[in-house]
Amino acid sequence: MNQAFQEKPPKAIDRLVAQFSREMRDVDAVIRARLGSKVDLIPELGGHLVHAGGKRLRPLFTLAGASMFGPINDAAIKLAATVEFIHTATLLHDDVVDMSSKRRGRQTANDVWGNKAPILVGDYLFARAFELMVEADSLPIMAILSGASARIAEGEVLQLTTAHDTGLDEQTYYRIIEAKTAVLFEAALHVGALAAGASPDAAKHLAQFGSSYGCAFQIIDDYLDYAGSEDVIGKQPGDDFREGKLTLPAILAMADHQDGLLPLFEQDDREASFEDAKELIISSGALDGTKQKAMNFAHDAQAILADHDAPVANMLHDLAEEALARAF
Amino acid sequence: MNQAFQEKPPKAIDRLVAQFSREMRDVDAVIRARLGSKVDLIPELGGHLVHAGGKRLRPLFTLAGASMFGPINDAAIKLAATVEFIHTATLLHDDVVDMSSKRRGRQTANDVWGNKAPILVGDYLFARAFELMVEADSLPIMAILSGASARIAEGEVLQLTTAHDTGLDEQTYYRIIEAKTAVLFEAALHVGALAAGASPDAAKHLAQFGSSYGCAFQIIDDYLDYAGSEDVIGKQPGDDFREGKLTLPAILAMADHQDGLLPLFEQDDREASFEDAKELIISSGALDGTKQKAMNFAHDAQAILADHDAPVANMLHDLAEEALARAF
Repeated sequence: MNQAFQEKPPKAIDRLVAQFSREMRDVDAVIRARLGSKVDLIPELGGHLVHAGGKRLRPLFTLAGASMFGPINDAAIKLAATVEFIHTATLLHDDVVDMSSKRRGRQTANDVWGNKAPILVGDYLFARAFELMVEADSLPIMAILSGASARIAEGEVLQLTTAHDTGLDEQTYYRIIEAKTAVLFEAALHVGALAAGASPDAAKHLAQFGSSYGCAFQIIDDYLDYAGSEDVIGKQPGDDFREGKLTLPAILAMADHQDGLLPLFEQDDREASFEDAKELIISSGALDGTKQKAMNFAHDAQAILADHDAPVANMLHDLAEEALARAF
Repeated sequence: MNQAFQEKPPKAIDRLVAQFSREMRDVDAVIRARLGSKVDLIPELGGHLVHAGGKRLRPLFTLAGASMFGPINDAAIKLAATVEFIHTATLLHDDVVDMSSKRRGRQTANDVWGNKAPILVGDYLFARAFELMVEADSLPIMAILSGASARIAEGEVLQLTTAHDTGLDEQTYYRIIEAKTAVLFEAALHVGALAAGASPDAAKHLAQFGSSYGCAFQIIDDYLDYAGSEDVIGKQPGDDFREGKLTLPAILAMADHQDGLLPLFEQDDREASFEDAKELIISSGALDGTKQKAMNFAHDAQAILADHDAPVANMLHDLAEEALARAF
């Protein structure tokens, strides 16, 4: 067959979206209904982000987790919406804390409405998330999601307090990315599996896919902030360096090249030094080292799926592959 | 007996504190334990407010509600701590949104640490509150507290969107004060009663004391911001007017004296006009009208206690009286 006529196989994320298109319409209906309020600003501001056209990877994880153990019931639908609400609340507060002006190619809520409204609407979404999960009527599930929420917030505080710590070590870095990215992927799979009747052990085991996948994903994000081009990542690289924030590439490079790199991070104005820092990090081998760490997490994630041969397990397997592929 | 030797009877709040001193030590221990985190800033910042020496009226309501239906069990202790965590999270975020620099006579957390940390630590406390309530192992209780949290946040958004609305009506004012003050008092009593085995109807009925008490308390607060002296309220009166925020005294006065009052509220610099506004509000009879509304709520609250003759019911009865007494 002529190479030119071969279609590229659809990406795993698109296969997941197609697989759960009907259920995601139900999730969407729950989100729209629960975003409702007589206070107009709430659906307006919440909807700005919720309907901004993200891929909804976290609720897809909940549905995927459920589908691997049984039919997708009403509880799984509500929990998928819960997970998206927690995620959205976190993003609203993060963007205020980080003073971000863009997310998913659109203005952030704080850029449109100022800081006050997103703080309060975030609180509202968080409370609505808890109302929803109560309806799923399972104490273990509520314990998982409330515990995950506490770990996320704790990780955000840790990230804040270490934001300009040029001595940040690898272990602390992993604690931060676990909390800010991996924990919610983990919880999303975990509660989906439980809602479909998985045993506590089986659900917990599958959840490890979410945890390892989340770490791989975040490490690649941090890798691309040095190695990526604007074409690939949709923004100028170098944000982390300019903010003076140590991520894995810089942490690994600091180990052997502190003499060159530390002064670059510690100067007051880092605006002009990104290429110098990037050069040092590449020549130290730290970018390759970073990619290797991400691969390890992705392979750990894939190993978790060994017991599952459902088509959905294949999609998750390929999703982990594609997280890495962004870096190649 | 010589009048000079008669001691003033202790205030109701102090009698409640004495009544539940042993249980409040247990509540305190739960709070201290759950405030813990390996991220030092969390207990530091959370403790700044939690241990600032407030009267802990809301957890006292939970214990009071429980004591009127049965012995105070472990669930009631945890729920009392939950209620205090929700309250503290709300205060941290409120002070950021209001840019307040003082609370309970101390610097606010945002004044000490900036805005970012209190947003994230507030989220942490909120999540910890949900973890705690899950341990109380009762779906109706979780539904009440998550619903209350959503109503509080919704009320805060409503307050924000109407902050400079000089046409604010009395009904919207009540919606705001119910959400920001009454709902948590109501929920605190409600879940305490349920934890001690009250029937759903009996618990819901008692909870109305909290709701009406909260409204009376907030209305008197708003009254004192016009009628109070620095001696009584611990700060200069006039904050609401200077912020251009309509509260009940101004809303009632607007009904008949809009011509004089509206221009005072609508001018850009209200710094010098507080005495003029106060004068108008007094002469319109709106301050007396405000006090009357607070009395109605306080008497509604007291009527709820008619079925209870426990000493604790007497303390709550007197507490409502003393909320009014601040205005005399």
